[in-house]
Amino acid sequence: MADLQGWIERDVASVWHGFTQMGAYANNHPVIVERAEGRELIDVEGNRYLDAISSLWVTTLGHRVEELDQAIRDQLDRVAHTTMLGNGNRVVIELAEALAPLVPVDRPRFLFASDGAAAVEQAIKIAFQYWTNQGVRSRTSYLAFSGAYHGDTIGSLAIGDGGFGTDIFDPLRFPVVRTPSLGEPGAVQAAIETIATNASRLAAIVLEPLVQGAAGMAMHDPEAVQAIAKAAQDNDVLVIHDEVATGFGRTGTLFATDQCPGVQPDMMVLGKGITGGYLPLAATVASQRVWEAFIGEDLSERTFYHGHSYSGNALGAAVALRHLELLEEWNVLANVTERAEQFRQLLSTQVGPLAGVAQIRQRGLMIGIELSAPEDGLRWGRKVSAACVDRGVLIRPLGDVIVIMAPLTTTSAEVETIVGAVAESVSEVCGQ
Amino acid sequence: MADLQGWIERDVASVWHGFTQMGAYANNHPVIVERAEGRELIDVEGNRYLDAISSLWVTTLGHRVEELDQAIRDQLDRVAHTTMLGNGNRVVIELAEALAPLVPVDRPRFLFASDGAAAVEQAIKIAFQYWTNQGVRSRTSYLAFSGAYHGDTIGSLAIGDGGFGTDIFDPLRFPVVRTPSLGEPGAVQAAIETIATNASRLAAIVLEPLVQGAAGMAMHDPEAVQAIAKAAQDNDVLVIHDEVATGFGRTGTLFATDQCPGVQPDMMVLGKGITGGYLPLAATVASQRVWEAFIGEDLSERTFYHGHSYSGNALGAAVALRHLELLEEWNVLANVTERAEQFRQLLSTQVGPLAGVAQIRQRGLMIGIELSAPEDGLRWGRKVSAACVDRGVLIRPLGDVIVIMAPLTTTSAEVETIVGAVAESVSEVCGQ
Repeated sequence: MADLQGWIERDVASVWHGFTQMGAYANNHPVIVERAEGRELIDVEGNRYLDAISSLWVTTLGHRVEELDQAIRDQLDRVAHTTMLGNGNRVVIELAEALAPLVPVDRPRFLFASDGAAAVEQAIKIAFQYWTNQGVRSRTSYLAFSGAYHGDTIGSLAIGDGGFGTDIFDPLRFPVVRTPSLGEPGAVQAAIETIATNASRLAAIVLEPLVQGAAGMAMHDPEAVQAIAKAAQDNDVLVIHDEVATGFGRTGTLFATDQCPGVQPDMMVLGKGITGGYLPLAATVASQRVWEAFIGEDLSERTFYHGHSYSGNALGAAVALRHLELLEEWNVLANVTERAEQFRQLLSTQVGPLAGVAQIRQRGLMIGIELSAPEDGLRWGRKVSAACVDRGVLIRPLGDVIVIMAPLTTTSAEVETIVGAVAESVSEVCGQ
Repeated sequence: MADLQGWIERDVASVWHGFTQMGAYANNHPVIVERAEGRELIDVEGNRYLDAISSLWVTTLGHRVEELDQAIRDQLDRVAHTTMLGNGNRVVIELAEALAPLVPVDRPRFLFASDGAAAVEQAIKIAFQYWTNQGVRSRTSYLAFSGAYHGDTIGSLAIGDGGFGTDIFDPLRFPVVRTPSLGEPGAVQAAIETIATNASRLAAIVLEPLVQGAAGMAMHDPEAVQAIAKAAQDNDVLVIHDEVATGFGRTGTLFATDQCPGVQPDMMVLGKGITGGYLPLAATVASQRVWEAFIGEDLSERTFYHGHSYSGNALGAAVALRHLELLEEWNVLANVTERAEQFRQLLSTQVGPLAGVAQIRQRGLMIGIELSAPEDGLRWGRKVSAACVDRGVLIRPLGDVIVIMAPLTTTSAEVETIVGAVAESVSEVCGQ
């Protein structure tokens, strides 16, 4: 055990953290994790923190899950990684077969990557080439939504709506057709009209179904997703559901799309929770219709010439496969439903009435508490989160939105702890 | 043990392989790997194949390396993953500290990703924002080389020179300034002049030092890299070395840049071999000069708002850290030098004289054998590789270039086996 301050200094001297102002990092009370137990992170000095953000929305069952650890140990006794380019790996086939009946996509095929953004890039490139493979050269644009976030690589950044000062990268981003976030009044009708007007130049519509996480948990109803699906079908435009954040139980169903009866996107993007939060793995899911457009002669231009070195990593596939089994064996979604309802009740009584709170938004275990800062520059989100960390609950805000993203196996007592810490912290920072 | 044909059918029914025409996949004799031992892959029927492509250029020490397996097992007993956004993890700090003295970059900081392409995207975005953070808005372009390959996401695809029919994505790619591949006659002088002419609009020069792998092992001399470095310095343009393929011993030194005395790029991109081929991990390395341009007020626009969920994955960091130690402990680079010389001699006597061979290019253990196909469409590269696979040596070509990329720990006997198989296969397919 070294001292925390020493580790923070070493960290700043050699590591660049994403989405982090490194000039302020050391003063923002970072947690330097050494190990974990269950849903608790333990820092280099032995301090414990409840992981109320699921290590940035990836952890599902908790840390140090014996069964997931064992899946990796067992796969290590076979092989850690072999290439998917022109060759296969047994555990990757088994994972794809296990996922196939669970994703709401027609006869799905799985193209793996590691970063979620890379899987988004795969989806937008596949949508683009889907049309060129059929001789259609006019469909070079995309419809995306205000507040959208799909990752940080240039292609996914182009589909996303910026924010965080990312507008500076405009010279590198291709233009897209953008309509209002689906939770806004009139947004659904506006989107339908925009799709109809622009259909001939749209390769695809890219959508975060039900929850725009990075927008601060902006939400819309299943009916909006259904309306977009119908407009896409009417106008022969592909639909891509980005379920990187919403997938694997986070919204109360295995996928957010499952709450939208009749909707089957042409493609889905999966990431984050797919390995239970253990290892980098992402997937682009393509429907039979999409897949067929790429079948042709060997080495022909119909081929999708895109592939990451660690696509279909065997260790990642092994833990993802075991994770799917555990979600079922442990009946995890039932706990999500119960804890989501508990959060709703406790937040409405303990947090909603506080003066500093403007709105609480929730879908399953994805929760955003929007603070009503009376003026800009107060950094209320940062301060409330720091106050939660002081209370042993790890929170990281999105601007002035406090995000709670508890692991799917969170207990009733832990929900009480989290809500209590948030209520106290909001009161302390923003007043009663 | 199921039958191979059954596994191939299951594979095609559910998995989409990158850079692979799935309509032809089943007929191209794919190897369906179940496990491995050392440098041998073992398929679902127990057949063994020498991994002569290092599982697409990632495997360094071999598969099932006891010490690497143990590093992952030990880290599983601590924690698999925690977020790097605003927080830290001990093993990630330790990895960055271990890498720091080894990379030829001034006071380096490491920003991690998982896919190599994502780390390239980080580098090009950092180069772009380096200038805007200093109020320079004109430097929105990049200089890149003919034959360049930097990955498949839109940003890395823009820097790359296409090929593989990727020109169809031109509407999504931002334009770059491109000069001839540095191995071409007059290319160095042309690049120097282009840099001088375009300096005021260049954010950075992006370069694969010494070897353009995906171009079919196109090579250039250290002097070319030095000349580019000097031109960049003279014109105040940043230089990014993409060492995803060349890094971690593949060229005979730990990094290709190490063979270019006096050269210190402003940024480097690392991937593939960084974990010994075990787990997806990539890194963008930034020099002190670059880093300082991003230091500012908390939440300010000087911050780099980019970060992947699994950035700094703890399991990946643990195996990468142990891998660095083993490269040293086992004196792996000495073996690379010896085996590279052995390859050179055996190839020159057994393969170079064959009628079907146009040129053999080699830098360390990166080897490309260019076949001289008398007409297009013969798929000689594919056929020679298939003949190697029939002989128990896994090869995957780049068009009509046979790539040999043996693991760094390859033995003398294995080199003989690989060269023998290639010589026989070339003779069989292309004639004596």
